[in-house]
Amino acid sequence: MSKPLILVCNDDGVFAPGIKALVSAVEQFGEVVVVAPDSPQSGQGMSITINHPLRYRRIEFKGTSQAYTCDGTPVDCMKLAVNHILKRKPDLVVSGINHGANSSVNVKYSGTMSAALEGCMEKIPSIGFSLLDHSIEANFEPSLPFVQKIVKLVLKRGLPDFTCLNVNIPNISSELIKGIKVCRQANGNWTEELEERTDPMGEKYFWLTGKFKSYDTGMDHDLWALENGYISIVPTHYDMTNHTLISPLSRWEW
Amino acid sequence: MSKPLILVCNDDGVFAPGIKALVSAVEQFGEVVVVAPDSPQSGQGMSITINHPLRYRRIEFKGTSQAYTCDGTPVDCMKLAVNHILKRKPDLVVSGINHGANSSVNVKYSGTMSAALEGCMEKIPSIGFSLLDHSIEANFEPSLPFVQKIVKLVLKRGLPDFTCLNVNIPNISSELIKGIKVCRQANGNWTEELEERTDPMGEKYFWLTGKFKSYDTGMDHDLWALENGYISIVPTHYDMTNHTLISPLSRWEW
Repeated sequence: MSKPLILVCNDDGVFAPGIKALVSAVEQFGEVVVVAPDSPQSGQGMSITINHPLRYRRIEFKGTSQAYTCDGTPVDCMKLAVNHILKRKPDLVVSGINHGANSSVNVKYSGTMSAALEGCMEKIPSIGFSLLDHSIEANFEPSLPFVQKIVKLVLKRGLPDFTCLNVNIPNISSELIKGIKVCRQANGNWTEELEERTDPMGEKYFWLTGKFKSYDTGMDHDLWALENGYISIVPTHYDMTNHTLISPLSRWEW
Repeated sequence: MSKPLILVCNDDGVFAPGIKALVSAVEQFGEVVVVAPDSPQSGQGMSITINHPLRYRRIEFKGTSQAYTCDGTPVDCMKLAVNHILKRKPDLVVSGINHGANSSVNVKYSGTMSAALEGCMEKIPSIGFSLLDHSIEANFEPSLPFVQKIVKLVLKRGLPDFTCLNVNIPNISSELIKGIKVCRQANGNWTEELEERTDPMGEKYFWLTGKFKSYDTGMDHDLWALENGYISIVPTHYDMTNHTLISPLSRWEW
């Protein structure tokens, strides 16, 4: 039997420390191929490139059998990998390790999670990993045993079609991590989202910024888990239907 | 009482015929402000601009009290409108009318629907409209009475926080439209997604393309409604948790 084929992507770009850490964690489980953006693509969500062509090129990457950078988004990388670069369907997609949280509503803007979502839409078991530390100097070391445990279990048990895992890891030393909680995506949003500046020509411009605000008072969601020292795992799918509203809305006088 | 404030966005860009048609449909219901991308942003999903600053400028737009173009994505436009341009919270967000379908899984890649999602995350009743015709010469005229009916009803009844409507309109004459169906997002995906070409320097490049494939055999989803002559309305939220998997996954040996 051939070794599992593991496709690795991210959104911080192929030169980010997080993807190196992820490859080092998973290389023992199979043949690793990296297809990742050639530049940072944070916040790209499910963005795809349709008004420009895509290119990719081969690079050296320790721990992989092949590695490529692509000039598109994380979802473009996935489509290129699955439809063109790889000769067989991967057994697993892992994305990350993201520099910074993708809990709660951030899953919607996240390029890291979009790569995982794209993977599960191709019926490949897929996992997005994020560490709660934005820094380029983030220490991924304490996360790696947990990443390995999760990858091992998913390789063994598989995942249902069309659902991937959104894994967030608190930025604390491993002995303080209380365990892993499977939970739902917390309800929250960003506020005060723009910083106004003036350029040397006297024209205004704006940076997106903001503060995250939770609206959620439950104890069964990812923000609660992370704040209480757990790794959160949210089973995430691309069905965005609010099923509870179909019946009441159907009774409106359309 | 002041007139309802209606914020209009899209992803085809401010100069697309679809947004002009949408403004002409809704101007009778309130004060209309347009904040829309200055260039086509199809396929941008929930993409936000964080590595570049944003700029906007005022333009003339018939049927509006104010109109602006922004050099960012649809979600950027929404954040700029709500946090900076508008002096009060809009009573309604409408996005579109998109040139082409946003049914099924396309909701995930759609910039039009992302603007509507961003609106509902701000607790503003929000609707994304799409016509099943990609053409720049699409005829929006037969859609407009239905757009008006839906807008009127949502202005009257409101929508629950955090859920917007994904409205898709078949490209047929109005007398053939059988009515409006509230339904779920169909299960499907894109296949054969890349077209390979060679540039004048002999280097390969790729265009994203593909064929849509439905995996869904139900009759309660948006693709079924559209194929059978109905306008589809999917109540759409940003909770991507697969709630049915929380309990079985919790029992894994994490």
